Amino acid sequence: MNATPDTLALRSQCANAIRALAMDAVQAANSGHPGMPMGMADIAEALWRHHLKHDPADPKWIDRDRFVVSNGHGSMLLYALLHLSGYDLPIDELKRFRQLHSRTPGHPEIDVTPGVETTTGPLGQGISNAVGMALAEKLLADEFNRPGHAVIDHRTYVFLGDGCLMEGISHEACSLAGTWQLNKLIAFYDDNGISIDGDVKGWFSDDTPGRFEAYGWTVLRDVDGHDFAALDRAIAQAQASDKPVLVCCKTRIGQGSPNRAGTAKAHGEALGEAEIALTRQALGWTAAPFDIPEAIEQAWSALEPGARRRRDWNDRFGAYAKAYPELAAELLRRLSATPALDHRTEAALASAIEGAEARHAAVATRKASQDVLQEVGPAMPELLGGSADLTGSNLTDWKGHRPLKGRGTGNHVHYGVREFGMAAIMNGVALHGGYRPFGGTFLTFADYARNAIRMSALMHLPVVYVFTHDSIGLGEDGPTHQPIEHASSLRLIPNVDVWRPADATETAVAWRQSLRRDDGPSCLLLSRQALPHGGDGRERIENIARGAYVLRRPEGERVALLASGSEIGIALQAAALLAADGIPARVVSVPCLDAFDRQDAAYRSAVIPRHLPRLAIEAGSTGLWWKYVGERGDVIGLDRFGESAPAAQLFKLFGLTAEAAAERARQLVRPQGAIAADSEFGTELNAVLSSN
Amino acid sequence: MNATPDTLALRSQCANAIRALAMDAVQAANSGHPGMPMGMADIAEALWRHHLKHDPADPKWIDRDRFVVSNGHGSMLLYALLHLSGYDLPIDELKRFRQLHSRTPGHPEIDVTPGVETTTGPLGQGISNAVGMALAEKLLADEFNRPGHAVIDHRTYVFLGDGCLMEGISHEACSLAGTWQLNKLIAFYDDNGISIDGDVKGWFSDDTPGRFEAYGWTVLRDVDGHDFAALDRAIAQAQASDKPVLVCCKTRIGQGSPNRAGTAKAHGEALGEAEIALTRQALGWTAAPFDIPEAIEQAWSALEPGARRRRDWNDRFGAYAKAYPELAAELLRRLSATPALDHRTEAALASAIEGAEARHAAVATRKASQDVLQEVGPAMPELLGGSADLTGSNLTDWKGHRPLKGRGTGNHVHYGVREFGMAAIMNGVALHGGYRPFGGTFLTFADYARNAIRMSALMHLPVVYVFTHDSIGLGEDGPTHQPIEHASSLRLIPNVDVWRPADATETAVAWRQSLRRDDGPSCLLLSRQALPHGGDGRERIENIARGAYVLRRPEGERVALLASGSEIGIALQAAALLAADGIPARVVSVPCLDAFDRQDAAYRSAVIPRHLPRLAIEAGSTGLWWKYVGERGDVIGLDRFGESAPAAQLFKLFGLTAEAAAERARQLVRPQGAIAADSEFGTELNAVLSSN
Repeated sequence: MNATPDTLALRSQCANAIRALAMDAVQAANSGHPGMPMGMADIAEALWRHHLKHDPADPKWIDRDRFVVSNGHGSMLLYALLHLSGYDLPIDELKRFRQLHSRTPGHPEIDVTPGVETTTGPLGQGISNAVGMALAEKLLADEFNRPGHAVIDHRTYVFLGDGCLMEGISHEACSLAGTWQLNKLIAFYDDNGISIDGDVKGWFSDDTPGRFEAYGWTVLRDVDGHDFAALDRAIAQAQASDKPVLVCCKTRIGQGSPNRAGTAKAHGEALGEAEIALTRQALGWTAAPFDIPEAIEQAWSALEPGARRRRDWNDRFGAYAKAYPELAAELLRRLSATPALDHRTEAALASAIEGAEARHAAVATRKASQDVLQEVGPAMPELLGGSADLTGSNLTDWKGHRPLKGRGTGNHVHYGVREFGMAAIMNGVALHGGYRPFGGTFLTFADYARNAIRMSALMHLPVVYVFTHDSIGLGEDGPTHQPIEHASSLRLIPNVDVWRPADATETAVAWRQSLRRDDGPSCLLLSRQALPHGGDGRERIENIARGAYVLRRPEGERVALLASGSEIGIALQAAALLAADGIPARVVSVPCLDAFDRQDAAYRSAVIPRHLPRLAIEAGSTGLWWKYVGERGDVIGLDRFGESAPAAQLFKLFGLTAEAAAERARQLVRPQGAIAADSEFGTELNAVLSSN
Repeated sequence: MNATPDTLALRSQCANAIRALAMDAVQAANSGHPGMPMGMADIAEALWRHHLKHDPADPKWIDRDRFVVSNGHGSMLLYALLHLSGYDLPIDELKRFRQLHSRTPGHPEIDVTPGVETTTGPLGQGISNAVGMALAEKLLADEFNRPGHAVIDHRTYVFLGDGCLMEGISHEACSLAGTWQLNKLIAFYDDNGISIDGDVKGWFSDDTPGRFEAYGWTVLRDVDGHDFAALDRAIAQAQASDKPVLVCCKTRIGQGSPNRAGTAKAHGEALGEAEIALTRQALGWTAAPFDIPEAIEQAWSALEPGARRRRDWNDRFGAYAKAYPELAAELLRRLSATPALDHRTEAALASAIEGAEARHAAVATRKASQDVLQEVGPAMPELLGGSADLTGSNLTDWKGHRPLKGRGTGNHVHYGVREFGMAAIMNGVALHGGYRPFGGTFLTFADYARNAIRMSALMHLPVVYVFTHDSIGLGEDGPTHQPIEHASSLRLIPNVDVWRPADATETAVAWRQSLRRDDGPSCLLLSRQALPHGGDGRERIENIARGAYVLRRPEGERVALLASGSEIGIALQAAALLAADGIPARVVSVPCLDAFDRQDAAYRSAVIPRHLPRLAIEAGSTGLWWKYVGERGDVIGLDRFGESAPAAQLFKLFGLTAEAAAERARQLVRPQGAIAADSEFGTELNAVLSSN
């Protein structure tokens, strides 16, 4: 594939170039992980120089093979590969490994480094992203390829280590990869027998090959990870498999280092100057730090073969576009960097909003969400729904959806009871491109998926999470299933938009905003129980999108009630009770604090006015609401676990009623002198604060 | 075991009693899950009537077998078993299934129902708790049994379903059970081929027996879950194994229901009166709803055999106590319901606090934590430490600790890279009793364990979580590893005490409070980097325990700076800068908002005074701090993801410096008129609010 004859010696030195760069960069930073890059360097040489289909000049080429470093602490392996292959990652960036605003952060990050396919580091998630990528590839190939026109035909390669395999998420994602028979997924297991605490035998004695065979994978056992010929054979074999493949590579962590190789010390700290010198000697690597001999540089460059491959693909795509112009245009739309919503989708969303307004019905917001999907699903071919085995409860399906099960294809994925795996797979789908994934579970079990939701946010992926059964309103299932802290906990994750709509119209707008978003995930927190229709008018629809708006503004208002979701009904009833008492109360609906915080100061002050005493009502943690009600305000919520009982009884038990809200509002509008002297910082029961 | 001859017909009717109670209770509640209890009724009969060692009259008998329903939605199976066996769970409670304040909540809850060993429902966690219970039993037996005196010798039985096996945590916990060779753990897999979305083949095609063999378990394949003789044989075989055992039982969900059995519809909804009538007919069950024929009642009662077994054990324990009086006393102390800390432990904690004060050193709080463990570890035999493969980073070990690896015993568990599994196993250890578990990982990866932390809190288990690398202060590893929202997110979980100590003394006090706690978990958020010693004096030590206290109180104070952990150093420096400007600033250290919120109003007002403008500083989410600083206050924090760079540069980059804090404090003490007119609700950059 390269002009230089590929002798064993050359291949060794190519691998050693990775080792040298890794140990030198870690040494320069005095921080990082040399062990994995040195241990996997030979595997990387075999894959990248002889099998990987990519073009360093076009890191976004849509039919490139994907390469995922699931053991992301080995980031220097990837940076070395990208640099050596010819990506836009100059040697100076490697010298600035782990420094502020370099393109070589501690763990690989998309958007920072060209050629990085996913942000990894949290173990087990990279392989799960890769499962999502391979799924997207399979679906896209099925949808767009035509006989003689395999325009989508690439593989997903993964490097992973013991840590990834110990993590539970690897079970979830790899089990699904087996069920789905994702034969273009090839994972290389860095079986070096070492994790941070030392020899893994004491805490990781799985027969990993047996485990993966149980998932329906092809397993290539006992491949010598330092034998190029063995690796070539294994890769060829893997590519021929009709199942996902785990290549079990016996390796030595820190290979090449005379005193550190094979030890936990090689994992996560710089080797030190002395050991680096010894390693150079042992490897026969004489070049200065960060210097790559020209022959090695040439041998590594993938620019020429990459350009050739891409030209070839461009020709083939040209023929495809000629034969199937509409398909080609749609494929390009779907795979563009920031795919705008198609006009059909926008029309479907508009229709869903209008339908909700027209129906004016009391409906569970999970059902209202399904009504939206019923409009959007048929109009949006890139929509890829799913649920973690709660389809009928989350209502993520729609009439005419095509269930994706087993080896088949479809547009609604049955993920099984695998919340974390679902989320990380959706991240992989979004990273690959071509589909807009959403998936459902109960809000409580957002906990299981939490770090993958965080990764959606960190990677700016427009994944939509449908979290139903959003409060004690789920009733009898009890405290294990009743979210309390979850809405607020999700709001705390940067770059997540958390929507908790109060009625069908708010639900439809929340869906529209979530689908329009292209720079991060959205969570839709939906009720199990029916909620009344909240308000009317075109202005309201516009304002819902702003995250909070005035739903009721009486003359001479003396207090403002803020609420979200199911508590809007309580707020409106409380306002009616207060009106009867001669206390006009504003009601502010707050479907999305995140969107509201992005509005300008004038809008925010106009909606949540500081001249009025304010009471917030939400069936969940109170803590975040004090920012909006102030010390003189009050919050009705729930800072304790729930109970198992019918929902209506629970709202009453916990004081989430119109009567209780009205009473608390009355306290707020009392003259200040009348407030009890022992008033205190907000507790859930008595948080009325005296002003000072 | 019972007087009535145990004919096949009797056994069938005993199992049918479970089926009848389950379908009648679910019908009465019109809510719940009949499918699992009806499907596993025969297995339950075999285990509970013929093998389980327990005494319904003493649900806390320390040498009882543990029984865990990991598929907790099948709670009616457990309630039926407890009622029928003779536990204090009258039939009226079963009639009130899922009703407010009944003893039969939607999912099994400890402390609510006698005989329930763990709260289950979140799938996969029950089996993981069971692994912890079996681990505790093994360790306790090793520590306390003596030749001829097997006073601790019981098994842990688990029922689990497809959902548990799909969840990633089942991989983590069952892998460890295999590594540890927990041969007294016996799990019954309800292999009914159905989950909520339908036939599992489409999303769960694992060869589960193969998977568990890969973990080193004994697997009994293809056991007919409706054949008593087969079940008896399987249980006998399982009890004889030297490994943990998975009994794979082929069952039909909703067995007995002519039209619902074997379908997803049987899983989670009432059968309906008509189908119940048909089922009664099919089962030959003629008794009225909630009526148990006397012969069946007698056949089920475990009171007599239970009393016999317990008397036998009491005799044996008496002999043990005679031979080993100190061991017996210690065992009883360790297994008492709320084990008070031993005087040695209290002395060690006092010594640790005094040592920290005396050293007066700048030290990373993770190191300060290890210094505490160095005192406490040797003095507290019930301490069971551990780490999710970050021992040398979390510093959870101490000189002389005994690492627990493989088949061995010890007092520091190498959990491997399994955060969720670790947490749920610790819950199981705490539930079993005899040990006080704590375990470490990076704070960011608290996300992975999150729902198990919630379960610690819901179950009031005094588990201690050691979360190190608590902020951007971890530096180069970058945003995937830098906690932002984590401190606040953990604070939001009810009944979790979150400590973020600012120096070695606060760390020691935090450990003392966490170990003294007997009604819930504590999280210790510890720094990677060294923090200066914060203050002096006995009064401070007392006040640390109150969650917040005044660290610096100058004459004529005009502003208060609130901070936790590493930001106390910033606050103290800012106060010095402000003092130079003639602005005396109070500094309040806030190691634990949860503990502070429990103080009386007088203390809280004295520490965080409402007459002063207040600035909070914490290297994390700002949202929760507005409750303490008020609308006229300000918060310096971080509501975005971090960056990969050396820590000191990051604090500067994100404005977490003494200079920035002093400047923001100066803004707060400016006359109100000087505040810009466009001031707005708190955003991270400009949150100064005008008063109104």
